[in-house]
Amino acid sequence: MKTHLECLPCFLNQALKAMEAAGENKERQEKVLKKIMGELKDADLNKNPTEFARMVYDTIAEITGNSDPYKAIKKRDNENAIKLLPEMRRLIGKSNDKLLAAVKIAIAGNVMDLAVNSDYDVRKKVEEVIESKFAVDNYYEFREDVKRAKSIVYLADNSGEIVFDKLLVEKIREVNGCRIYFFVKNSPIVNDATETDAKFVGIDRLENVELKTAGMGFSEQSREFKEFVRFLKGKGLIISKGQGNYETLSEIDSKIYFLLIAKCKVIAEDLGIGLNHIVCKSGSSPR
Amino acid sequence: MKTHLECLPCFLNQALKAMEAAGENKERQEKVLKKIMGELKDADLNKNPTEFARMVYDTIAEITGNSDPYKAIKKRDNENAIKLLPEMRRLIGKSNDKLLAAVKIAIAGNVMDLAVNSDYDVRKKVEEVIESKFAVDNYYEFREDVKRAKSIVYLADNSGEIVFDKLLVEKIREVNGCRIYFFVKNSPIVNDATETDAKFVGIDRLENVELKTAGMGFSEQSREFKEFVRFLKGKGLIISKGQGNYETLSEIDSKIYFLLIAKCKVIAEDLGIGLNHIVCKSGSSPR
Repeated sequence: MKTHLECLPCFLNQALKAMEAAGENKERQEKVLKKIMGELKDADLNKNPTEFARMVYDTIAEITGNSDPYKAIKKRDNENAIKLLPEMRRLIGKSNDKLLAAVKIAIAGNVMDLAVNSDYDVRKKVEEVIESKFAVDNYYEFREDVKRAKSIVYLADNSGEIVFDKLLVEKIREVNGCRIYFFVKNSPIVNDATETDAKFVGIDRLENVELKTAGMGFSEQSREFKEFVRFLKGKGLIISKGQGNYETLSEIDSKIYFLLIAKCKVIAEDLGIGLNHIVCKSGSSPR
Repeated sequence: MKTHLECLPCFLNQALKAMEAAGENKERQEKVLKKIMGELKDADLNKNPTEFARMVYDTIAEITGNSDPYKAIKKRDNENAIKLLPEMRRLIGKSNDKLLAAVKIAIAGNVMDLAVNSDYDVRKKVEEVIESKFAVDNYYEFREDVKRAKSIVYLADNSGEIVFDKLLVEKIREVNGCRIYFFVKNSPIVNDATETDAKFVGIDRLENVELKTAGMGFSEQSREFKEFVRFLKGKGLIISKGQGNYETLSEIDSKIYFLLIAKCKVIAEDLGIGLNHIVCKSGSSPR
């Protein structure tokens, strides 16, 4: 996905929010914002938004010395989500289509993206998402592809949300015992889950699930990106959670499903749907 | 008021919104945003936000050739507000304190700041504001000062809103027949009212009201600003509508009343109140 003009102020707001979360002082916040604007003022907007997000977090790390401003919040989100597990298992248990319920819960977990103040919000969001219809609905195809995949790549998004991803992975394993490559980010960016989070919630202890890490925000022309895409394609089926992964992979030609809530106007427009709508979209389907 | 860090992404969003309203093409929008970031990356944030707003609108004019992107919207807002006049007069007529009702209606008119989709929204906002209490309440003092002023300066804010300002000016003249200097901006900035708007709604035809214009966004060190402040102080009592005028004049040492809705977090924090709260604040009162 290309970077839209609306993303430019958004990068600055993201930097501010991250530094506020880390309790950074105003002087350094100003330095960071000015450095980011210096980078953006000549930027090539054909790059995808995650490349700029990487630059934003690298700039924060460089100037404040803090490479993980959301560290405390990520821990809190994981802990809060774990408390909700019994309830989520009950919800899935009483559903007619348990895989569908798990997919929707994993999508709802995406609201944990910085906005969560209490367990109650997530619970409410889960109820709302379970009742709502997909704005792009390739779920039937998704279920069939999951059943017959020889192996599956699962690209996780945020901390907290990763607890519900684990639930979905468990449910997927009930319909297909194949190997699952579960990817988190190899270094902190926004509140994305990293190896620490995956291990904290026990992804690495699931049978036949291999925990892997990948970078975020490298150029589509880079060797790393090409290697990553080659790996993904070799595994048959890819499940991609959240906006960041969509921004990076929306144009790859492969068997991929995007599970997300459209939380920003730019993504919603790119998908041709309304804000806050949910999608289970096949990469090959028209938007 | 100083410029806060949150204002930096806000300037970019304002530019985008203005250019969208004017139907400007993406290529020129990108040029404008990049030029603005080039200016902001070394900016002195001790300047007040209106100085940067002036730069934003000058940049839009320079690159797109459009010095009044909100022209059509301003006209629509004036026309919509005029339709509401009979209803507003009835509301004031049945109030115990007619001046207070007129003050609150004039404040409510401030929601016409770009957000208005229908008459209904303004009507609803007026009802809400009339019922709500001032978060900073110097109304009693205001009323007494209005009664005994030898002359009054009234600093208008937006188009549309200016219709309700006219109502308030009429009401003020019922308690004090003194000369009123009614100021609008001397050139377009955001959707601020200019001479065209003032004449369209007939401010210039009110008895003993003199229509005046002033710039917006000049430096506090400039000759123009100092002259403007000297003029204001010489008139005894100043009534200042909206956020922009507050940003420019919040620190002047004079008999001034700020009538506004705190529509952004930065202003709300500066005033020590909640978002969307209303104030009738004396310049000399502690916040």
